[in-house]
Amino acid sequence: MKIDGKHYRTIWLAADGWSVEVIDQTKLPHKFEIASLKSVEDAAHAIKTMQVRGAPLIGVTAAYGLCMALRDDPSDISLDSEIAFLAEQRPTAVNLRWALDEMRTAVQNLPYDKRVEAAYARAARMADEDVETCRLIGEHGLKIIKEIAAKKPPGEPVNVLTHCNAGWIACVDWGTATAPVYMAHDAGIPMHVWVDETRPRNQGAALTAFELGSHGVPHTIVVDNAGGHLMQHGRVDLVIVGTDRVTANGDVANKIGTYLKALAAKDTGVPFYVALPHTTIDWTLDDGMKIEIEERGKDEVLKMPGRLKDGSVVVVEIAAPGSPAANPAFDVTPSRLVTGLITERGVAPSTREGLSKLYPERA
Amino acid sequence: MKIDGKHYRTIWLAADGWSVEVIDQTKLPHKFEIASLKSVEDAAHAIKTMQVRGAPLIGVTAAYGLCMALRDDPSDISLDSEIAFLAEQRPTAVNLRWALDEMRTAVQNLPYDKRVEAAYARAARMADEDVETCRLIGEHGLKIIKEIAAKKPPGEPVNVLTHCNAGWIACVDWGTATAPVYMAHDAGIPMHVWVDETRPRNQGAALTAFELGSHGVPHTIVVDNAGGHLMQHGRVDLVIVGTDRVTANGDVANKIGTYLKALAAKDTGVPFYVALPHTTIDWTLDDGMKIEIEERGKDEVLKMPGRLKDGSVVVVEIAAPGSPAANPAFDVTPSRLVTGLITERGVAPSTREGLSKLYPERA
Repeated sequence: MKIDGKHYRTIWLAADGWSVEVIDQTKLPHKFEIASLKSVEDAAHAIKTMQVRGAPLIGVTAAYGLCMALRDDPSDISLDSEIAFLAEQRPTAVNLRWALDEMRTAVQNLPYDKRVEAAYARAARMADEDVETCRLIGEHGLKIIKEIAAKKPPGEPVNVLTHCNAGWIACVDWGTATAPVYMAHDAGIPMHVWVDETRPRNQGAALTAFELGSHGVPHTIVVDNAGGHLMQHGRVDLVIVGTDRVTANGDVANKIGTYLKALAAKDTGVPFYVALPHTTIDWTLDDGMKIEIEERGKDEVLKMPGRLKDGSVVVVEIAAPGSPAANPAFDVTPSRLVTGLITERGVAPSTREGLSKLYPERA
Repeated sequence: MKIDGKHYRTIWLAADGWSVEVIDQTKLPHKFEIASLKSVEDAAHAIKTMQVRGAPLIGVTAAYGLCMALRDDPSDISLDSEIAFLAEQRPTAVNLRWALDEMRTAVQNLPYDKRVEAAYARAARMADEDVETCRLIGEHGLKIIKEIAAKKPPGEPVNVLTHCNAGWIACVDWGTATAPVYMAHDAGIPMHVWVDETRPRNQGAALTAFELGSHGVPHTIVVDNAGGHLMQHGRVDLVIVGTDRVTANGDVANKIGTYLKALAAKDTGVPFYVALPHTTIDWTLDDGMKIEIEERGKDEVLKMPGRLKDGSVVVVEIAAPGSPAANPAFDVTPSRLVTGLITERGVAPSTREGLSKLYPERA
């Protein structure tokens, strides 16, 4: 999407034809900086330090990291060791392993002198495939937005509420939850997005607001507490969120607080949609309550990074010294609260039957 | 309640017998400091700058401010002008006007030389009455906690979730939502409180955690997003919150985000109680949706005060420069989501009938 009028992806091949450049997300929202990744070590570092984040983007970054490693040494030993090295940068990221497996498949049966070219081709295709997946999610979500827009007085914006960041900077382009929004905006439908701050890591205020603002989509940051009130007063037309995992019966694991917004949407009759690529569906689980929820460090709750007046970024403590805190990172929204799942193949009811119809090969 | 083992109220007569001292709440949670109020101007400043906050405490502070003014000039002209001066410090605080009306009634028919003594007596009684009201709320809430504790394995704490600060530092002592907690803790029932951070002003993380910690009540700060997840997993036994206004039919206006917790409590079968003195009931309104919700400044959302490592307190900006924000300060929880209202006269269902039975003189 656009930043200052220029189209960006989150990752792209540099002018030299072999190194890659990424938007350094550790600097957002305070500074927009491009980081240059010139080695597999650079790619690993970018993944580890969250210069790149979001499952699809991590996968593509690792893929290009492997390309750079193979330029130095395309041997089988190198292939194995570099894949292992990249995989260990974020042990829990399923998508990272998937991307590296794809890369291995693409090169392992080729002679050494053909591997680099094949690797770069596969990495580029992986990036393009992610863009296409997100674009299709956007197309399907756009139909929902168009239906809502058709029922509103002309010129009145469609108000979307979203939680956390399931935006283009977590992917390669478009995003998942944001794809329908960008597509509607680009199609001239007046849009307005309520951006949940998304404590404790503030991905909404820091990232979603940044990317919407950069592309020119009207939006307003609200604290996570506000969404229910906005829905009660008819100020939200639909909710669209992303997800970290959807179980085979349609339960949705997503950033902590998603469940509360789904409850409010149900209580007020606001449609609640979840946008996802098929890779996010966990066909092995049939109950979201069985998902183990990651408990993260308490400093994310007790400390807050921010910008001082002089532009420098500092971290402040916001509670009394020594206050205890807990930090469950995700929650599970039961399928009964979800209006529909927006996937690259279309919109399905959030049920086993709904998912099975879209993905009969997995049913 | 206690701070470092010593019992405090939020306001008390100083050793000189005429000035008053308060806990300076603008310094919390980063520093515990006592402010000395030696004139009506000091009292007005304390109210205006939120050195004192919370409806009951504001009222008592204004009452003592008037006492100090009458020491200098007990005339009718002084009485009128000082009451007007104090009232304008927080124009929307109903309790402030009530307290000043009470003070006027107490002195206006007395000769000038009897007014100071009568004023101090009324102010002291006002403080004591607030303590007694909160103590009674605590007694009635304690019964609820005892019933829950009786059903738990011995030694396992009763887990209360609360939102914002309806604690003793908003009153004179005990608090409203916190009174049952303190009473249970002091009675030896193992207690644990989940403290909602309460964005955007962080009253939970900054004030509730401070006062619970100071009194020795085990507690854990969580972001506002976490409560639903905790309830889904059986980690909350009951919710108790305060309120800014309860309508005659039992709808509850309280800090933004309360509605979301009430929805989660209903969805998970967790009892949801609201603690209040009768002065918070608005007998003139029969629908909470008619309450106008204050929209506060966006800086509360976009900026955050906190403590640097050297102990100094700074304000940081947490979103991209120029990000728009909205800040509705309260929401309304429909009576159907409220298990009961804990008042100084007992616990009532959150309905017109429930309230009428407790307050037949108003029905």
